[in-house]
Amino acid sequence: MAPHTTARISLQELRELCQQVLSYHGFSAPHVEQLTATLMAGQADNCASHGVYRLLGLIRSLKAGKVSPDAEPEVHDQAPAIVRVDARQAFSPLAFKRGLPLLIDKARDCGIAAMAINHCVHFSALWVEIEAITAAGLVGLACNPSHAWVAPAGGRRPAFGTNPFAFGWPRPDRDPFVFDFATSAIARGDIELHRRSGEPIPEGWAIDSDGHPTTDASEALKGAMLAFGGHKGSALAAMIELIAGPLIGDLTSAESKAWDGGVDALPYHGELILALDPARFLGEEAPRHLERAETLFQSIQAQGARLPSERRFAARRQTAADGVELPAQLLADIRVLLEETPGG
Amino acid sequence: MAPHTTARISLQELRELCQQVLSYHGFSAPHVEQLTATLMAGQADNCASHGVYRLLGLIRSLKAGKVSPDAEPEVHDQAPAIVRVDARQAFSPLAFKRGLPLLIDKARDCGIAAMAINHCVHFSALWVEIEAITAAGLVGLACNPSHAWVAPAGGRRPAFGTNPFAFGWPRPDRDPFVFDFATSAIARGDIELHRRSGEPIPEGWAIDSDGHPTTDASEALKGAMLAFGGHKGSALAAMIELIAGPLIGDLTSAESKAWDGGVDALPYHGELILALDPARFLGEEAPRHLERAETLFQSIQAQGARLPSERRFAARRQTAADGVELPAQLLADIRVLLEETPGG
Repeated sequence: MAPHTTARISLQELRELCQQVLSYHGFSAPHVEQLTATLMAGQADNCASHGVYRLLGLIRSLKAGKVSPDAEPEVHDQAPAIVRVDARQAFSPLAFKRGLPLLIDKARDCGIAAMAINHCVHFSALWVEIEAITAAGLVGLACNPSHAWVAPAGGRRPAFGTNPFAFGWPRPDRDPFVFDFATSAIARGDIELHRRSGEPIPEGWAIDSDGHPTTDASEALKGAMLAFGGHKGSALAAMIELIAGPLIGDLTSAESKAWDGGVDALPYHGELILALDPARFLGEEAPRHLERAETLFQSIQAQGARLPSERRFAARRQTAADGVELPAQLLADIRVLLEETPGG
Repeated sequence: MAPHTTARISLQELRELCQQVLSYHGFSAPHVEQLTATLMAGQADNCASHGVYRLLGLIRSLKAGKVSPDAEPEVHDQAPAIVRVDARQAFSPLAFKRGLPLLIDKARDCGIAAMAINHCVHFSALWVEIEAITAAGLVGLACNPSHAWVAPAGGRRPAFGTNPFAFGWPRPDRDPFVFDFATSAIARGDIELHRRSGEPIPEGWAIDSDGHPTTDASEALKGAMLAFGGHKGSALAAMIELIAGPLIGDLTSAESKAWDGGVDALPYHGELILALDPARFLGEEAPRHLERAETLFQSIQAQGARLPSERRFAARRQTAADGVELPAQLLADIRVLLEETPGG
């Protein structure tokens, strides 16, 4: 099999393969359902770095003893505008799902509310969660630390995670306005995909372990990634460490990396999600003001610029009809998971 | 007087000059107090673009009939976690001051709370407000649109304001961790200062009115500014338009610019401020987790990188002792304001 051979597969077939792999390795039914939905959402939107490729890391983390396959999340009513969900060392999607109804209730009651997910193992694209919030007619923000891989502006050693930041705005009868970006210059998964394919990475993504710029993906993974946008991106990364770390009583990216102990499992930490209710901010005026947001979107598109998730939504419609194209090697690597010793 | 002559002046003398100018032009005593405090905070921290230089724009906006010199803000208890302050077309600092006690109460009650300031004319550095929130032991975020000066990533015409984003984290017995940056590549005030001094601007700050890169400050001011960090900074700028615009029932940067009608007054819009209470997120564990944040700060400083506001806090200590150095022309321009027809 040539290294760049690809294979086309329908969403349904790929979904069943995901479920099969996850069940085979001992994940409980609720976790299988949420993990599959999250992986398939990434794949269906052609986000290769957050698609079924992540199955490899999920199973590696499970085998390293770093994640529970069946812990049921505990939802706590922490304060009038705070819901806290203890994921109990399982993956985050089920914890998000279990906490979401209370987050929505609190946002509608108070106008703004926060959900802190604690003790979760994290791998998912945040826009999956953001879209669940916009589907309820709410504005959503989400962020989390990861493993300490990113050097602060002016520094040479990792202090921050890739620390994604995501935002969503509900649009009646349309795809929501959604963005979700790593505060690193690029997602770690993209550097890993370059390493797998042997391609060089662009300058500005990373420094090597001596602090010098590098285009070698392996050297970059041993050194430190860089934040996007210089000191401003670095400041955002620090903010995310703080509000999705100590503020919610959970690990920073450096602590998550130390907890990993070199196993290279998925990061173990917390996540902070905010939901804001336009109806509470605006009352009866809400529809009129949401319409003014449409004027903003039109002014962007009228000059030939794209809205952040346009390509992703277009991919979603296309893959629903045509299925997805995966590297044949990746599909083979996933199928091999069904021949390994299961577990946990 | 040579164009680059500077003059040293004590903070007390400069403060009195500010008060004198503002009173002379008809601002009410509460506005004089808050405006002076805000301008002096910028100057004392050596933030030239947010210091007393802004007095010129304040008086210009007043004379253009774009701002009330004496409106008393109205504070509304909008929802359990939302306070809304109507600035009634006056400058924002007094509105912030009047709403802050209720914002703090709501954050302590609910865990997180939002303050929407509406109908304000804006000129101030957000870190002044952020530091008032961290002084109460709370985590703060703030953002606002401005005038539409910044092109979206992939576009050629202004759609966003310079849209600052600011964050603060309380540190017991230390200066807080604070950052405050424009989501444009640079603050508009910095381009204006280059135009005043006749210096070229760096590439990457702006495009001219044909959409081409320019280093000419005047051409940049006629064309469009660029967001920092490419499509990620552009996405953040869009988020700020939405959450500090339509979400709070106030103007976008394009609407603010249209309202200005070419007068070149200060932007008229709203502002969104969030406050989060670590004690509500963490209970008795708060001090222990805040201590873990200190470990993060130490890991940044130990590798020779600076925390975002370090230079500003150092300047504050130095100017308290030595006063500030201003361009002599600026000081002359400010003193001339006392010879103009007052008003309003």
